[in-house]
Amino acid sequence: MRKALVAALMLSSGVVIADEGQWQPYQMPSIADKLSERGIQIPAKQLADLTQYPMNAVVGLGYCTASFVSPQGLVVTNHHCAYRAIQYNSKKEHNYIADGFLARKQADEPSAGPNERLYITEAVTNVSEQVTKDLSDDPLKRYEEIQANRKALIKECESDDNYRCSVRSFHNGLEYYLIKQLIIRDVRLVYAPPKSVGSFGGDIDNYEYPRHSGDFTFLRAYVGKDGKPAAYSSDNVPFKPKSYLKINADGVKAGDGVFVAGYPGSTSRYRLTSELKFASDWLYPTLATRYQQRIDTIEAMGAQDAGVKIKYAGTLASMANRMKKYNGLLDGFKATDIAGIKQGREDDFRKWLATDSQYQSYQAKFDRLEALLVEQRQALQTRYFFENAQSSDLLAAANRLYRLAKEKTKPDAEREEGYQERDMKMFKARLKRIDSSFAISVDKTLWLQDLNAYLAQDNRVPELDAMLKSDDPEVSLSDKLDGLYSLTGLTNQAERLAWMDADVKAFETSADPFIRIAVALYDTNLAQEKAKKTLAGKLSKARPGYMEAVIAYYKANNWPVYPDANGTLRITYGMVDGYQSKDALYKQPFTRLEGIVAKHTGVEPFDAPKKVLDAIKAKRYGSHKVESVYQDPASWLCRLFSCLDKPESFGSVPVNFLSSVDTTGGNSGSPVFNGKGELVGLNFDSTYEAITKDWFFNPTITRAVHVDFRYILWMMDEVDHADNLISELDLVRN
Amino acid sequence: MRKALVAALMLSSGVVIADEGQWQPYQMPSIADKLSERGIQIPAKQLADLTQYPMNAVVGLGYCTASFVSPQGLVVTNHHCAYRAIQYNSKKEHNYIADGFLARKQADEPSAGPNERLYITEAVTNVSEQVTKDLSDDPLKRYEEIQANRKALIKECESDDNYRCSVRSFHNGLEYYLIKQLIIRDVRLVYAPPKSVGSFGGDIDNYEYPRHSGDFTFLRAYVGKDGKPAAYSSDNVPFKPKSYLKINADGVKAGDGVFVAGYPGSTSRYRLTSELKFASDWLYPTLATRYQQRIDTIEAMGAQDAGVKIKYAGTLASMANRMKKYNGLLDGFKATDIAGIKQGREDDFRKWLATDSQYQSYQAKFDRLEALLVEQRQALQTRYFFENAQSSDLLAAANRLYRLAKEKTKPDAEREEGYQERDMKMFKARLKRIDSSFAISVDKTLWLQDLNAYLAQDNRVPELDAMLKSDDPEVSLSDKLDGLYSLTGLTNQAERLAWMDADVKAFETSADPFIRIAVALYDTNLAQEKAKKTLAGKLSKARPGYMEAVIAYYKANNWPVYPDANGTLRITYGMVDGYQSKDALYKQPFTRLEGIVAKHTGVEPFDAPKKVLDAIKAKRYGSHKVESVYQDPASWLCRLFSCLDKPESFGSVPVNFLSSVDTTGGNSGSPVFNGKGELVGLNFDSTYEAITKDWFFNPTITRAVHVDFRYILWMMDEVDHADNLISELDLVRN
Repeated sequence: MRKALVAALMLSSGVVIADEGQWQPYQMPSIADKLSERGIQIPAKQLADLTQYPMNAVVGLGYCTASFVSPQGLVVTNHHCAYRAIQYNSKKEHNYIADGFLARKQADEPSAGPNERLYITEAVTNVSEQVTKDLSDDPLKRYEEIQANRKALIKECESDDNYRCSVRSFHNGLEYYLIKQLIIRDVRLVYAPPKSVGSFGGDIDNYEYPRHSGDFTFLRAYVGKDGKPAAYSSDNVPFKPKSYLKINADGVKAGDGVFVAGYPGSTSRYRLTSELKFASDWLYPTLATRYQQRIDTIEAMGAQDAGVKIKYAGTLASMANRMKKYNGLLDGFKATDIAGIKQGREDDFRKWLATDSQYQSYQAKFDRLEALLVEQRQALQTRYFFENAQSSDLLAAANRLYRLAKEKTKPDAEREEGYQERDMKMFKARLKRIDSSFAISVDKTLWLQDLNAYLAQDNRVPELDAMLKSDDPEVSLSDKLDGLYSLTGLTNQAERLAWMDADVKAFETSADPFIRIAVALYDTNLAQEKAKKTLAGKLSKARPGYMEAVIAYYKANNWPVYPDANGTLRITYGMVDGYQSKDALYKQPFTRLEGIVAKHTGVEPFDAPKKVLDAIKAKRYGSHKVESVYQDPASWLCRLFSCLDKPESFGSVPVNFLSSVDTTGGNSGSPVFNGKGELVGLNFDSTYEAITKDWFFNPTITRAVHVDFRYILWMMDEVDHADNLISELDLVRN
Repeated sequence: MRKALVAALMLSSGVVIADEGQWQPYQMPSIADKLSERGIQIPAKQLADLTQYPMNAVVGLGYCTASFVSPQGLVVTNHHCAYRAIQYNSKKEHNYIADGFLARKQADEPSAGPNERLYITEAVTNVSEQVTKDLSDDPLKRYEEIQANRKALIKECESDDNYRCSVRSFHNGLEYYLIKQLIIRDVRLVYAPPKSVGSFGGDIDNYEYPRHSGDFTFLRAYVGKDGKPAAYSSDNVPFKPKSYLKINADGVKAGDGVFVAGYPGSTSRYRLTSELKFASDWLYPTLATRYQQRIDTIEAMGAQDAGVKIKYAGTLASMANRMKKYNGLLDGFKATDIAGIKQGREDDFRKWLATDSQYQSYQAKFDRLEALLVEQRQALQTRYFFENAQSSDLLAAANRLYRLAKEKTKPDAEREEGYQERDMKMFKARLKRIDSSFAISVDKTLWLQDLNAYLAQDNRVPELDAMLKSDDPEVSLSDKLDGLYSLTGLTNQAERLAWMDADVKAFETSADPFIRIAVALYDTNLAQEKAKKTLAGKLSKARPGYMEAVIAYYKANNWPVYPDANGTLRITYGMVDGYQSKDALYKQPFTRLEGIVAKHTGVEPFDAPKKVLDAIKAKRYGSHKVESVYQDPASWLCRLFSCLDKPESFGSVPVNFLSSVDTTGGNSGSPVFNGKGELVGLNFDSTYEAITKDWFFNPTITRAVHVDFRYILWMMDEVDHADNLISELDLVRN
């Protein structure tokens, strides 16, 4: 019976406690009780301070998160976050994607590419006052004033060009914060496992668990000899971060408290039920159907043409990822009646508004917001087919180029975001990138599908209809499009780039068919943009009022109040824990090396490298083997039953683990900390059942998936013998 | 922490203890200790007695197991075991397959069909002495003497034609038992759920878990007014069984001991490592490849022709089942190095033989057996393509018919098994059945594939080559076969049946092309059969000697010794328990009603009936709801921690459950008993990971899947209101 008890305890560490919340660091002291309940001992006040350990070791990549792990500017993030850097360095002679890469000394560390950046958030300042002061009542003016205020703050902040600044809206415009980030511009590649480790399981395992991914890569930040950020130069020296993370080589066990710091991208937790219903009932199904059609088309055309297949491989991979997300959302909405749950809460909220004298006036604001949202949905549905009808990559480029010419007629500060001088590098890169991911045949087929869908409905734009019409009834739309592609010069990169310097008149007199369509549609597009901005102006008044009341209501209920994710630095906490995936199916919190061997088929994406398989089969665990990831032998229960005299053992190196922290896209690469603030893993995914968490956090099924740092150390030590790097790390034990 | 403990305990009931063994009932007293360790309280001696409760309530269906559950001859078995009976009664006007069936009174119970039988094992007698006395040394003679001895025993036993008798070999010919079974010939259909309950999940869920199948059906045994078995007659009366099973409506919990009685078909646990290797490395892969090709062919042809699709639906379903089994075997051999484990044991066995003076002489016998097995494998590989080259249904029929004419020239007792008078009914039925599952196009395509494979290798039979040859080089083999099909009369049922009465000469002078091939190949086939028999004769000497030594070795090691399954009545015991399915994936022992709703898509096989979904959604559990299927509130652990003050609850009706009992095909429908010998479930499947158990019992992953009787009672009570049947049952509670 003692043995039975231990076996039972090995399967779960406890009962679900909600760990919802992507907290702004300054909020940490307000949840200090919850942190210590979870066994997180590092003072909440310390976590709130971006100039202190560990938060000053957390860095952004723009789309992912990373962290410093050595005094020499060594940085660790996900393999998939560093993929571009690895690809940039892969040549025919040395395929680092396939074979991995390890620099045995700093001199061997190549540039990660001219566009790679590391961002260190140095300050987060509440600028709500400055952004929202003296705003007009007229919605469009109001919208533009907010943008102007933001731009002014950014401009001032970016006077030192080693900094990137942004002003982000929190709680849907209730608050604004100015984020100031130091930019490291010389990033180098240090150590990457082969793709067959870094994304073992590939698309098939994406969003799935049990998982066995070695999704990690090491980079290094370099600066000029003066210690200031600088573009790549062989004279540059490793950056000395203010601090770097200790790594606990003993890792965590089931039930341990953990926290994660990073840059989650976007969530919609405070959206209204009507918004959720629109998304689940119309928006996601509509987008998913079109997406699946596009995926099927590209796959079919790729099967016929190897060139097409290569060019669209990247597009297809990201579409597959997005499609899995759509399916996860739709399955999740089917599995749990989230709309019903939210509606129930909203009904209670309305009742509360009616009873609390302080908030009675908010009922009308709530109704006003609902009315605006109806307007917003109708506008979106009306625009939907027309916007898709401009899906050709060439037409999109023509639209942007003509807009640029128009914007350039204004002073830089007044130009639309994306068309200012600070944006031109990115603008140009985007125009160049078309060459590597474009084929006329595919672009035309997809565009034709969208045009036919547009023509099959009633919300038509005469200017577009005129462009599609042919004088000769014998000429089909398909023939017509063939003509456009044969006559345009935009397929030529030099010509595309040359248009960046053309003036408005050059566009308006051009005979290039795509330029002509862009010019013809310009007024309609601009009018629609103005309508969107006007609506945004209205919402910028209505939403904050609603949020004020919601926050008051949540606080009255003692519910967590944190802003929706918006790409800014956040902290989330939780515990290492498995979950009930389906009826009678329980997913345990740790996977082990042997799971790699079991999944290995030799066929991508289940083609683990021989060196990894050999080490596992030979049981070369080194010092990384863990006997148990569950029960602490010294715990009260085991002392009581001396149950660990011969426990069922884990007996392997943990590969990935689950925790109940609250993450979303952008948290990739985020450091996972134990309660003492020591690094124990890297966040890299979440489970399929949890995809709906962007709308609603369900604590019983929401789990994030992390690479266990013990697996990373095992790879460095037993497989790749990266002794030079190991000696750089600050390894601690329990 | 209390809650955590309970949650943990809900996930597993304990540690694995091997429950290997498909025991002959007479052996039960020898494992009495193990039974009581498992909490099985019913005396082992009582289980050994076929004339006592509960064994005298267990019946065979020929291919499945069932049991009596009322004094009125009511029988319960699996839905898939009674499928033929349900199909037999389904008409256009009332589709019992789709809609289910419930007779509200006995007069409404239709015949299950003229071929349905129930077999009640009344006596099992050791006849080893009679079968193996004074056998010749000449292998072929020896084989024939054994057959003659068996036939004589059977003939004597079947002098009362209410009995079916058989002589089965145990421990590969070490022992023989005469089995005497009463035959019930009037079987009627009483209560069957819709197919969407009875095989919810269909082929997709076959061999899978978590499972939600209502795989049960009630039949009733009828006899003549004199109480003796009789063919169907409206005057017949319900059979009064000697006893019938009590049903415990409280069911079992995780960790409870259970046992199962039934008729497992065949296992190979005592086979040599070389036999296992041949099966895993050549036989299964070879069969699987051919099978998959045949499945693909039939599916492709069915997609083109609805008639073909209907005719081959049954064939395809059983092929899919078999294919899943092959894949499970191959995956299982890949997942666990069973050959390595067996080899290790065999090496130890050889060492033991060398050290134990009593068994030293067995070393030579072991070597002799290995040599014979090499011979057997070579013969099998040599014959393989030639045997497949006779795969046409028409050629197989022609072969059987000509053989019948030949056998009929001998006295009945001397004829080959399958060609005696007692076999003629089945012989005829098989010839008739061709009409409903045959299409020339498919038969020809599959045969052509086999013929091409035959022609591509060297083990050729001149008589067959001659039949396939065409004088005209322009005529392809495919054309040639078209000719055969157009000229044969065997596609006509009346003509096929007429050949049953034809003499040898009629065959030898026939112009029917399939008859001509059968005649041409007869001598070769007979010679091969003789070779097989000769080898069987040699093995009938070698195997028992080997088994003697193995049994002695097992006993010396205190390992369980039970004969391989051979379709005779067996008992297996174990406990209700989940299992570790994959790294980090644990399957819990009970599924619940809500799992049906979660799997329901509305599309077959996940198309649960509305009446079931409505009852679940309305939480109409009646008295069948169970709060917990895990911890006993009165257990020592909970008394110690009073942990059940507010336990996480199961809160539903259990649908299926897992136990560690040792079953195989033939155990379908077997009663699952609690420790007191009360019925708590019906066995119906085992898990995918466990498919290799026919060769090697791995206690950590081997689980059988049972329908929980609480689900059956819930269906009867809350869904179908089968009050008439419920009142017939002997329901007890804990």
